[in-house]
Amino acid sequence: MELKEYIPKAGPLLSKIDSPADLKKLSAEQLRDVCDELRDFIVDVVSVHGGHFGASLGVVELTTALHYVYNSPEDRIIFDVGHQAYGHKILTGRRDNFHTNRKYGGISGFPKRSENIHDAFGVGHSSTSISAALGMAVANDLDKKDNKVVAVIGDGAMTGGQAFEALNNAGAMNSDVLVVLNDNNMSIDPNIGALKEYLAEVTTSRRFNKMRDEIYDLLGHFKSAGTKMRKVASRLESAMMAALTPGSLFRSFGFKYYGPIDGHDVNLLRKTLEDLREVKGPKLLHIVTVKGKGFAPAEKEQTKWHAQSSPFDKITGASLSPKSTKKSAPKYQDVFGDALVELAAENENIVSMTPAMPSGSSLWPMMNTFPERAFDVGIAEQHAVTFAAGLAAQGKKAFCAIYSTFLQRGYDQFVHDVAIQKLPVVFCIDRAGVVGADGPTHHGAYDVSFMRSIPNVIISSPLNEQDLRDMMYTASEYNDAAWAIRYPRGASTGMEVRKHFEKMEIGKGICIQEGEDVAVLSFGPIGKYVTEASAELLQEDIHIGHYDMRFAKPLDTDLLDEICQNYQHIITLEDGARLGGFGSAVAEYLAEKANKPTLTIMGLPDRIIEHGTQEELHAEVGIDAKALVEVVKQKLVGV
Amino acid sequence: MELKEYIPKAGPLLSKIDSPADLKKLSAEQLRDVCDELRDFIVDVVSVHGGHFGASLGVVELTTALHYVYNSPEDRIIFDVGHQAYGHKILTGRRDNFHTNRKYGGISGFPKRSENIHDAFGVGHSSTSISAALGMAVANDLDKKDNKVVAVIGDGAMTGGQAFEALNNAGAMNSDVLVVLNDNNMSIDPNIGALKEYLAEVTTSRRFNKMRDEIYDLLGHFKSAGTKMRKVASRLESAMMAALTPGSLFRSFGFKYYGPIDGHDVNLLRKTLEDLREVKGPKLLHIVTVKGKGFAPAEKEQTKWHAQSSPFDKITGASLSPKSTKKSAPKYQDVFGDALVELAAENENIVSMTPAMPSGSSLWPMMNTFPERAFDVGIAEQHAVTFAAGLAAQGKKAFCAIYSTFLQRGYDQFVHDVAIQKLPVVFCIDRAGVVGADGPTHHGAYDVSFMRSIPNVIISSPLNEQDLRDMMYTASEYNDAAWAIRYPRGASTGMEVRKHFEKMEIGKGICIQEGEDVAVLSFGPIGKYVTEASAELLQEDIHIGHYDMRFAKPLDTDLLDEICQNYQHIITLEDGARLGGFGSAVAEYLAEKANKPTLTIMGLPDRIIEHGTQEELHAEVGIDAKALVEVVKQKLVGV
Repeated sequence: MELKEYIPKAGPLLSKIDSPADLKKLSAEQLRDVCDELRDFIVDVVSVHGGHFGASLGVVELTTALHYVYNSPEDRIIFDVGHQAYGHKILTGRRDNFHTNRKYGGISGFPKRSENIHDAFGVGHSSTSISAALGMAVANDLDKKDNKVVAVIGDGAMTGGQAFEALNNAGAMNSDVLVVLNDNNMSIDPNIGALKEYLAEVTTSRRFNKMRDEIYDLLGHFKSAGTKMRKVASRLESAMMAALTPGSLFRSFGFKYYGPIDGHDVNLLRKTLEDLREVKGPKLLHIVTVKGKGFAPAEKEQTKWHAQSSPFDKITGASLSPKSTKKSAPKYQDVFGDALVELAAENENIVSMTPAMPSGSSLWPMMNTFPERAFDVGIAEQHAVTFAAGLAAQGKKAFCAIYSTFLQRGYDQFVHDVAIQKLPVVFCIDRAGVVGADGPTHHGAYDVSFMRSIPNVIISSPLNEQDLRDMMYTASEYNDAAWAIRYPRGASTGMEVRKHFEKMEIGKGICIQEGEDVAVLSFGPIGKYVTEASAELLQEDIHIGHYDMRFAKPLDTDLLDEICQNYQHIITLEDGARLGGFGSAVAEYLAEKANKPTLTIMGLPDRIIEHGTQEELHAEVGIDAKALVEVVKQKLVGV
Repeated sequence: MELKEYIPKAGPLLSKIDSPADLKKLSAEQLRDVCDELRDFIVDVVSVHGGHFGASLGVVELTTALHYVYNSPEDRIIFDVGHQAYGHKILTGRRDNFHTNRKYGGISGFPKRSENIHDAFGVGHSSTSISAALGMAVANDLDKKDNKVVAVIGDGAMTGGQAFEALNNAGAMNSDVLVVLNDNNMSIDPNIGALKEYLAEVTTSRRFNKMRDEIYDLLGHFKSAGTKMRKVASRLESAMMAALTPGSLFRSFGFKYYGPIDGHDVNLLRKTLEDLREVKGPKLLHIVTVKGKGFAPAEKEQTKWHAQSSPFDKITGASLSPKSTKKSAPKYQDVFGDALVELAAENENIVSMTPAMPSGSSLWPMMNTFPERAFDVGIAEQHAVTFAAGLAAQGKKAFCAIYSTFLQRGYDQFVHDVAIQKLPVVFCIDRAGVVGADGPTHHGAYDVSFMRSIPNVIISSPLNEQDLRDMMYTASEYNDAAWAIRYPRGASTGMEVRKHFEKMEIGKGICIQEGEDVAVLSFGPIGKYVTEASAELLQEDIHIGHYDMRFAKPLDTDLLDEICQNYQHIITLEDGARLGGFGSAVAEYLAEKANKPTLTIMGLPDRIIEHGTQEELHAEVGIDAKALVEVVKQKLVGV
């Protein structure tokens, strides 16, 4: 099968829909067929080209009904997190290039304002949609427009604090906002929290319904009784309404609550949305859906089918990737996950937590081996960080596993609760550097820059998997400050790893090889490109020095002093923002010196970087081996 | 009155309490008197020395009861936000130096782990206490300790999203956490949100109580009826329990709910807490208090009496500060507030928002003049930023007024919702630089560093109030990126300000004066020290150049090139972190050049800076005029 050239065909109805206007031309009776075609098309494309999966299958009916009832782009539909928006993309003019989804140069896997007029608000991180929707609704109010705004948010995203901030604020305002709570009882990983239990209770509504019927019967008897009795009965009735209609949580926030209804009945959704279009003020529609709906393997194993990166059989779900006989290098994530278990086995003080990413961050081994010491706190990055600080304040060694971009969500807690108090929390910062197909919202570009100015924080990155293990071990025994260890998504080097842990000297880099004229200082696994470039340059008899600095903070100033004496040019290389990052730290240190080497900082440029494979992006922005070879040669022209 | 030497005397009971153990020696009957003495002592000290005020007076009884019932430090008591902790400080060994509160070298105005063993967790920002408490409770579980953890949180702080994340997570866990919800219907400014209305409804419990009584009467009749009737009645009863006991919101999150009770009845509190000590799992006690309780002027005007910086009469509240005949320079906050109204009058597209700081940030003029275009969203920084982005996405010009350290709380939204989408939100970043008496949690040290690596953001700071006005005007007309304008707390220069606005050239600095050998590049109002230092150096015939760079991003590289050609030494000066800040940007730019001037970066050092006046702190860290004179002279030794 020629994977790259396989362009799935849409069904007869879907193939004529190039915009929501085309959808509206259909009769209500045809919507069911559109949904079937849409679902088939998504399965077709993702089975060949990969992508997020379960979330979009779950909202096929909702997406269709929304675009049938509302008038995008005048009405605004915001899909929280965004990987549920495939159906939306296909219905809004991107059907024929949907197979380029998440590929370099192709369409984004998330809604993106610059991509399409129907993408009302860019998303990728969770829990932002209600805030954005309220802003848009208020803008409509000010402009005296009657346009509608809808936020579609999952039960997982609803646990993010910002969603509550927005509910609280929206509930007190009179603007027209519809929040559709897409309750599939599942974020990426099963989300743990009281909200989940609450929703589960609400949706097992048989008990409620039966009780309500019985009580209404009973109340009927009173209504015919005396005046006082009638008055009490009437009050009783309104109290019962509140008690027995689910959704009191949302009503507490000032929202009108509707539901729960079946989120896979497109005509029920259509009718309900038509009604709600006419209801003023903040309102919430609770729908119940199944993640992966219509694709049996995905319905069964929702976490596994959250996203797929390689081809699979459209019926059975079986992988169609050619089986590799070569043992591949473990992912950095798994190196982290296994090392944590080994460390925790020796050090019973170790605890760990993840904000809803046990699979992504590979915290599963720890959760399985030491369930009482490993916590999935749900989509709640702020809480995750302060929770870690609370544990550390009581003497526990907390390993907080978190994606680089999600630590942005817990940044104030990083500063206020950890760093200012000098609590020795270890942050294992996953997805540091460009992340690949997820693109701009997920690139871990900024962590070194946003952490480096904060006191009481060590910032390190390993050159390879053995160094990652040793860094984790060293951090586990260090109690004088917080410690951040950053590593990228994906495969490590595949080196032979020694079994036991060894301590690293804090704030010390190492010389990989000495050279002449040009020294390259690398930070993190991207140092592999220096090895490649060095080998290539050697063939032209160019001998570069290579130093793996290991620590962006504290900087190894002794080693830097030595390098300054022996080289005319320094090049720093990092998979992170050029501005304010590791190279910037070197620039600050060198600034005051007279007669120093020139310094070239190689890192991510000061612009938004789109999606693509990590290799494609490294090449595009000029931080791969080839780019390094060129920069070295340019430097040497002047020697 | 010799203010500095006035040390108020504590009453007969309080003067013997040096630790919670001393408090426990008293009989329950004496607690009322302790509370009176504690309240008098707080009023005494704050009336002379200043400080936060209303919050601590409101929790005198709660604080006393907590320390009477619980055993700190084995039990942990966490005071959210922390400016309610004066009573706690006084009861835990800091009575005799409480008059040094918030003064340079004195005790902190907030709980601080390094200050006292009874300060369980450092606070200053809002909404962190439940997360930290849960972490501690889990640590107790792991250590098989039966110690208790209490989080005291106000209704304002409860609107912060992190509080909900923590409630949601704690509600699903079995750990022993007591959350005391201190409901005074008032954060710093009246907080706006559905939660406030919900709490107001809960606490007007007469309606609930009456209805409950009537319904229970009614149910009595049924219980003697037939089997089916009895069964229905029993179900009805449990449904009524849920409907008619207030607190369903918190029960939705899995908390046992108690209250509301009178938070000024110390013995009721004591008894309730004694009972709750024995209740397992997550539980919430709702108490109702009056902010400023016991000091009439503060009860009446709560926002005004949130904090006091100058002496006042202990009975009437009248100011005792000597009246100045000199017209003082307006605060930067007020310059912002007035300019915003002027701009909004001309440009009806302008909207603005603050996360609960209309007074602090001076958004009041805008809220009064254009109430439909100015929003206090409550303590909800994340929501504030995305709400601004939502408005901007619909074409509104959003001015988001936010303290530097509170923008940390909305950092991910700054990156994800504003910068990545290139939405032209204007951030008016207040309290940038050292803030004064509020100390480490409130210093605006990191904003330039954490924003500089983010694409699509302009970062500027005015030298004076006229420049602030012109920057705001220029930003209001600019739509190609976000724009951050940072300015410090407190007085501007007092210059004569031109009435009309003028556009500034984006990314361009200006030469204030040319000089020889040494050029000082300043960023922001701290440039005033360069003027002072320059005058002093002139007396020794040293002529320094002074450049007000205005923009940390984009940097004026043309001007930098020119400076490089004309000077041997460059000094950068900023009221912000040395690492990653404005000076760092200059270092990055110069790095690649050969034969360049040396560069000295003057800014806040890489350590936590304690509290004190802004002038004391500038002197301490070496970024005032005196320090600059010294650095210039050191540079010139080498010339």
